[in-house]
Amino acid sequence: MELYADRGFDQTTVAEIAERAGLAERTFFRHFADKREVLFSGAAELQDLLVTTVAEAPSSATPIEVITRAVVVAGEVLQVRRDFARQRHAVIAANPELQERELIKLATLASAMAAALRQRGVKEQSAALAAEVGVAAFKIGFERWIKDSDAGDLPRDIRESLDELRAVANGQ
Amino acid sequence: MELYADRGFDQTTVAEIAERAGLAERTFFRHFADKREVLFSGAAELQDLLVTTVAEAPSSATPIEVITRAVVVAGEVLQVRRDFARQRHAVIAANPELQERELIKLATLASAMAAALRQRGVKEQSAALAAEVGVAAFKIGFERWIKDSDAGDLPRDIRESLDELRAVANGQ
Repeated sequence: MELYADRGFDQTTVAEIAERAGLAERTFFRHFADKREVLFSGAAELQDLLVTTVAEAPSSATPIEVITRAVVVAGEVLQVRRDFARQRHAVIAANPELQERELIKLATLASAMAAALRQRGVKEQSAALAAEVGVAAFKIGFERWIKDSDAGDLPRDIRESLDELRAVANGQ
Repeated sequence: MELYADRGFDQTTVAEIAERAGLAERTFFRHFADKREVLFSGAAELQDLLVTTVAEAPSSATPIEVITRAVVVAGEVLQVRRDFARQRHAVIAANPELQERELIKLATLASAMAAALRQRGVKEQSAALAAEVGVAAFKIGFERWIKDSDAGDLPRDIRESLDELRAVANGQ
C-alpha cells in the first residue's frame, strides 16, 4: 500500500509488492488474484459485515435504522485501519480504472444490503432506496473522515452525513 | 439497438449495426468511437441538460428542489424515447461490462450536478448529498418505469421515488 501511495499504482510491480511484504512472487499470487486485489480484498468481508448487521438488527427497526446501524458498524471497523484506508484512498483517487472498480464495489454493497432488507420483509423499492441512501452517506462521511487531519471519528462522520442527507432531502 | 436486444451485445458486430442503420462501416466509426458508444452517446447531452437545469433554477430553490427539477426534466426527455430506453436497459442488464460503464455514467452525472450546485453557492457536502439523492431516486424511478407494462410516466415515477426516499430517510 505504501508502495502504491509513493509511486502510483501503475508503476508498482507485483514483484515489488511481494518483496515489501516479504513474500515470494508466487506466494503473493496464491493470496491475490492480481495487484488490484490488494486494494479490494476487503470488500467481501465488508459485505458480510453489512449483511449480517442488517440481518441481526431488531425486528422493530425501520429500514433506515437498520441501514444506519450497518454503515456505522462498518465505520467502526474501518476507523481502526485509518492509515491503510487513507493510503488506499489516495491510490484509488489517482487511477480512473481503480475508481471504476470502487464504484462497482459500492454498488455491489448497496445491492447486498437491499437484498438483506428484502429478507426482512422490506418491500423492494424501499429496500433499494434505504440501501442507496446508506451507501451515499457512508461514501460522503468517509470522504470527510479521510480529509480530516486529526484521527477523526468515522462512525460519527457517517452519522452526521446521514443526518445531513435527511436534512437535504427534507428541503434544507 | 434492436440488434443488441435480439442477439446480445457481444454477438453483434459493427458491420451489422452499420448495415441496419444504412451506413458504411467507416461512416459509422466516424460517428461512434466503438460499439459501446451507441449505448452511451447520450450521456454528454444528458449531463448538459442536468447541469443547465441546475444552473437555471430560481435562486430561491433549495438544493433538493433544484435536483428534483433536473432529474424530472431528464425524465421528460427520456419518457419520449421509451422503446430505445427499454432496449438499451435490457442490453446493459445482460452485460456486466456495460453495467460498470452505466455505473460510471451515473457517478459522473452526480458529480456534474454536485459541481453545478456548488456554483450556486451550495456547500460541498450538501451539494454532494443532494446530487447522490437525485441520482438514486432517478435510478430507482427509472427501473420502475422500465418494468411498467403500460406506457408509464417517468417524470411521475422519479418524483414518487424521491418522495419515497424522503419517507425512508425519515424513518418510515
